[in-house]
Amino acid sequence: MHEGTRTEIATLGEFGLIQHLTADLHPQNPETRYGIGDDAAVLDFGSRQALVTTDLLMEGVHFDLVYTPLKHLGYKSAMVNFSDIYAMNGTPRQITVSLAVSKRFCIEDLEAFYDGLRLACERHHVDIVGGDTTSSVTGLAISITCLGTAGPDRIVYRNGACDTDLICVSGDLGAAYMGLQLMEREKAVFRGEKDVQPDFAGKEYLLERFLKPEARRDIVQRLEAAGIRPTAMMDISDGLSSELLHICTQSHAGCRVYEERIPIDYQTAVMAEEFNLNLTTCALNGGEDYELLFTVPLSCHETVSQLEDVRIIGHITRPELGCALVTRDGTELELKAQGWNPLKADR
Amino acid sequence: MHEGTRTEIATLGEFGLIQHLTADLHPQNPETRYGIGDDAAVLDFGSRQALVTTDLLMEGVHFDLVYTPLKHLGYKSAMVNFSDIYAMNGTPRQITVSLAVSKRFCIEDLEAFYDGLRLACERHHVDIVGGDTTSSVTGLAISITCLGTAGPDRIVYRNGACDTDLICVSGDLGAAYMGLQLMEREKAVFRGEKDVQPDFAGKEYLLERFLKPEARRDIVQRLEAAGIRPTAMMDISDGLSSELLHICTQSHAGCRVYEERIPIDYQTAVMAEEFNLNLTTCALNGGEDYELLFTVPLSCHETVSQLEDVRIIGHITRPELGCALVTRDGTELELKAQGWNPLKADR
Repeated sequence: MHEGTRTEIATLGEFGLIQHLTADLHPQNPETRYGIGDDAAVLDFGSRQALVTTDLLMEGVHFDLVYTPLKHLGYKSAMVNFSDIYAMNGTPRQITVSLAVSKRFCIEDLEAFYDGLRLACERHHVDIVGGDTTSSVTGLAISITCLGTAGPDRIVYRNGACDTDLICVSGDLGAAYMGLQLMEREKAVFRGEKDVQPDFAGKEYLLERFLKPEARRDIVQRLEAAGIRPTAMMDISDGLSSELLHICTQSHAGCRVYEERIPIDYQTAVMAEEFNLNLTTCALNGGEDYELLFTVPLSCHETVSQLEDVRIIGHITRPELGCALVTRDGTELELKAQGWNPLKADR
Repeated sequence: MHEGTRTEIATLGEFGLIQHLTADLHPQNPETRYGIGDDAAVLDFGSRQALVTTDLLMEGVHFDLVYTPLKHLGYKSAMVNFSDIYAMNGTPRQITVSLAVSKRFCIEDLEAFYDGLRLACERHHVDIVGGDTTSSVTGLAISITCLGTAGPDRIVYRNGACDTDLICVSGDLGAAYMGLQLMEREKAVFRGEKDVQPDFAGKEYLLERFLKPEARRDIVQRLEAAGIRPTAMMDISDGLSSELLHICTQSHAGCRVYEERIPIDYQTAVMAEEFNLNLTTCALNGGEDYELLFTVPLSCHETVSQLEDVRIIGHITRPELGCALVTRDGTELELKAQGWNPLKADR
């Protein structure tokens, strides 16, 4: 370990840290088209491009086995990687799966995990092609790498949004975050810390959004069928604000998002009320929705507004106008990323 | 977690577990050529084939930061993945790097890790194209996935060894294991558990073999220059016995390996004496050498015996003859895998 000056990682956060460590990397191989900085890396294989994305999930940081069934965890671990490939407008094809397990896990646990993994792979026609299974002295670690393909002119990066483009999202936002809150409350109940009866009736949607998210292949297919190629796209894992700021930064653009247009499910609203949380804040910063956020040219307005389960929530502006949320009463509030960032000090 | 019948993972071990979990996987994508069961998976991109391999390294299981400098750890983490690609007769091209770090790590630590990683990548012309950096509640977790390429007729699997083929290894064996023993002794000294003075003089080779292994690109290049395509190949990570048994099982073959022909460095022999360890056992089962083990047709005898740093150690037989070590006095001992297996009960 380092001796001498010690700079805490929290001073940079995840994105700052990655930028710091990888700032001077220059590709040496001609087929490396795009490296760090998007949902997936892009490799050139002539007639096809390959996409690569990877995720490392740690017990106690990314998941809590007290309320996460291992089958759901397997399903979700695969899904979050598929989501990154769809966010590049690609198709996931293969995954490798590495697990580090401690002695408290038995074979039946891993079978349950693999059942979920397999179900996710079957639904998205993805092959499990390799991996590594080893031991851990502490919790469970899950590392999944997903490979995908896309035609060379199909890939959508984060950096292509232009002034006047429409900002769209699929599905609804904030429900996964509410599911997490609900689970944390039930965990407290289970431990006897709170005097509330466990009650999931009418809240199944929130739990499912949190425990068993679906990567939006249907949206990618719908966009293609409608002849729309987004100018920029990301999946919403850290929260709408955070992802929108990434698109705007990388596209050198600003944006206006309208509070009244952000899609929110009824159950999410009910739970926010019950938990006394600001609904818009939850939808903007909740994270883990795995919906797609994308921008399309203004000329696509009619087509995109007819797409099932897609909502136009705002538009891209010139960079000097900044990034703002327009509230219901017309006030402009600067958008800030308060999304999920496990390396930030304030968590 | 599972409730009910509980089967301990140790009853299957790593390979048994992977086989159990992945037994009924069938590729759904036409470009998935070869999945689980070799050093890397093989994907078909028309004129080229892509290779994918992945490794998950856990603190306290795969490395000990008491005596492993982070720069060396970065170097080695990359190298072990390159080694898997070379073992398929391919060329490593890109890696993704995921790290989970706890609060005790500072930015300077991660810089040191990346320095080592970068050095390994520069030497082998590999690009770092992505990854994930997140937090851990306990130790360090490192997950690296390496992509490589190979011409379609160049890939060498584990399953192609035929009766009368010559068995060859590069470099020498057992030195990394001796380096580990040395480090463990010094750690005990450091803790005051043993009354031995730390002394690495004359043992630098062993430490380097353990802390900073080199993937054998030179051997792959030499084989190609000599016009030799091995019939089977693996890298030696778990130990010669273990790897040879994999080749024989997958090739449906037996083998004879001659004790006197196993390449061992002088320092390894001296240290085995000092530690009162059986030298041949160390060379057969030590692991972490990252040398290449391969088989070539008997007709290549003259060419392969002239290759620098390559030694012929035995030959492949018909399967009914089994797998045996022929000792210096001519006795045949059955080869057993006692290699490094973090999921086995006896560790």
